[in-house]
Formats: sequence, C-alpha cells, structure tokens
Amino acid sequence: MEIFKERIRKEGKALNEHVLKVDGFVNHQVDPELMEQIGEEFAKHFEEKNITKVVTIESSGIAPALMTARKLGKQLLILKKKTSKVLNEDLYQTPVISFTKGEEYNLTMSKKFIEEGDRVLIIDDFLANGEACSGAIRLLEEAKAEIAGVGILIEKSFQPGRERLEKQGIDVYSLARIKSLAEGKIEFLGE
Amino acid sequence: MEIFKERIRKEGKALNEHVLKVDGFVNHQVDPELMEQIGEEFAKHFEEKNITKVVTIESSGIAPALMTARKLGKQLLILKKKTSKVLNEDLYQTPVISFTKGEEYNLTMSKKFIEEGDRVLIIDDFLANGEACSGAIRLLEEAKAEIAGVGILIEKSFQPGRERLEKQGIDVYSLARIKSLAEGKIEFLGE
Repeated sequence: MEIFKERIRKEGKALNEHVLKVDGFVNHQVDPELMEQIGEEFAKHFEEKNITKVVTIESSGIAPALMTARKLGKQLLILKKKTSKVLNEDLYQTPVISFTKGEEYNLTMSKKFIEEGDRVLIIDDFLANGEACSGAIRLLEEAKAEIAGVGILIEKSFQPGRERLEKQGIDVYSLARIKSLAEGKIEFLGE
Repeated sequence: MEIFKERIRKEGKALNEHVLKVDGFVNHQVDPELMEQIGEEFAKHFEEKNITKVVTIESSGIAPALMTARKLGKQLLILKKKTSKVLNEDLYQTPVISFTKGEEYNLTMSKKFIEEGDRVLIIDDFLANGEACSGAIRLLEEAKAEIAGVGILIEKSFQPGRERLEKQGIDVYSLARIKSLAEGKIEFLGE
C-alpha cells in the first residue's frame, strides 16, 4: 500500500535493526484517516473471502481492525492479554511469549463470540515472529472457526512470522514488508 | 443516547451491584456501526469546543475514541499503561490505581504528541471512580494542554467519578448514566 509505505518512509524510525518506531501515526498517536484507508484496503483485498468476523489482539491492532470490520459490515472481536490463567469454562486461553517485548501472557477469548464455521480475518499492526498471531489461530481453531486470512500493517520480513503462518496454509497480506532496518535505514522488500 | 441505552438494556448484564458486563458490543466484541454512531454523537456534542486532539486510555476506549477523532478530523492519542516506571525524559508518567481491576500502572504519554494550548477531548468507555481519567488529566495539564471535555460511554453514577471531574471544572458528557445495578437490574438515571 503505497501511501502507507510513504508515511513509514517519512515518519517511521529504525531505532535499531529490529525495531521500527511508528508511534506518530500507528500505535501511540493514531491517524484516523489513515486507519480508514487501511480498513478499505483490507476490506477490498479480502472481500471474496466471505469474512464473518474480524479478530485482533489488544491493543495496537484495534484501530485498523475496527475500520476493517466497519467496511466489511461485521463485528470485531478483541482478544485479551491476561497475565494470569483464568479458570473459566466459558473461555479459550493459550500462552503467548512476545520475544519483542519480553513478556508472557495468556491470550483469552470468550467462547460465546466465535461459532463453528465462522470465517475469521485476523488484523494486527506488526508481524515479526508470529507469536501473537499463532496464538490467535490456536484459539480460533479450538473454536472450529476457519482462518480466512491475516492482514498485517507492517511485516518484518527478515523475521520468520510470515513463513510460519504460510506453512499452516494461511493467506497473509501485509501493507508494508520491511526487508531491513540495518544502519537506521528502512528498506522495503522489492525495492 | 437512546439507541445505546437500549442496547445496554437488551444485551448488558448487571453481574453484581458494581459490575456491568457489555462484552458483546463494547469491550470484547465491538460493534463498529455502534462505535461510528457514538463517534458522531460525541463529535456533535463537542463540536463548538475547538478540539485539537482526542485522547483515550488503552484499550477499551480506543474504538469509540477513534471514531470520534475521525468525525472531528483530528488525531487520536492512546495513553499507555506501563507496569514499570520508564526513565525517559521524553515521557510524562503518572501512577494510576484501578479499584475495579485491582491493578496499578503508570499511565504514559510521549511529550512530543501534546503541545501547549492543545484542546483535548478525553474519551473512555467507563467512568466509575474517575481514577484513569484523572490520571490522563494530570498528564495533559503537565503538558499545558486544556481539557475541553470528557466523553464517557457508560457512567456509573453511583460512584464518585463525575463529581470528582466536575469539581475540577471539567465538562463531562456520558451517553448512558447508570443509577443502580442492584439485584441484577440495570437502572438509568432519570427513569
């Protein structure tokens, strides 16, 4: 998505070879107009997939996921990060370790909001090692939903997240694919 | 806001006299169309206030705050909950204790996204004791911004949040004001 990549070029910052800072328009300050354009892009890309529900993981994916759900006319489900295992038969839970943030949490979803046969589109801001996304997929498959696709704002293509998802047969669409952040330079794949 | 109150009547659940569950359309599953209507309502109510920025606290306020910011044509700033005090001169931080959730965190905001004279509209899902909202106000006042208003989806009017904010001269607009949740019944103020 060219306007999004342009924004990253202008306002993004490669803090080191692993960390891209986009806190001015994606995950601390958020540009609502950009989020609407992103929502349109994802809705267009996945329109043939008969999506029945959009799912994201709190909290940086909420803004683009909400706009995507709005465009598709479907409900949004926000998976929660709980620090403790909650004993409750109405919940699905799975542990997720975030290498980037050095935190561990239990990704949590109420059973009542996903039905067998739901066709789910997962939206998230970053794809790096694919830990969070794989956790979401585990929960959704436990609920017998189908993963109709994964929409990512920024993919760190030098990390194995995409490969891991594609091995499971998942259709991954990333708006910006980063080849390298070395030496403070943001390089996109295919450029 | 009548359609929102109607939704609470139909789908909300008074778990006990302090807890109202709205996880089917506000904070776990989210209805994007309802969020858009809520955004329109807040934008209309505060349109004379010359808002320059919308602020919310992660993560349940993000959806309605994003839609409000979109309608107002302004940027959204999401205040972060950090468990540790981050030593960084580019950040404002203040401790917040959530009585409801029994957690303590440091509400965190980058200095670069708020300027002196910014006129801020704070949006959040719940107002109970006003702890989170008061924390946001402390950070924003430290940054010399003006609080142009506070927009709340659900106010628990039997708790002191509104009184606390109004004592500071803050204009509080709540879409649904709950008088009581006793005996499993949801009662609104003025009914």
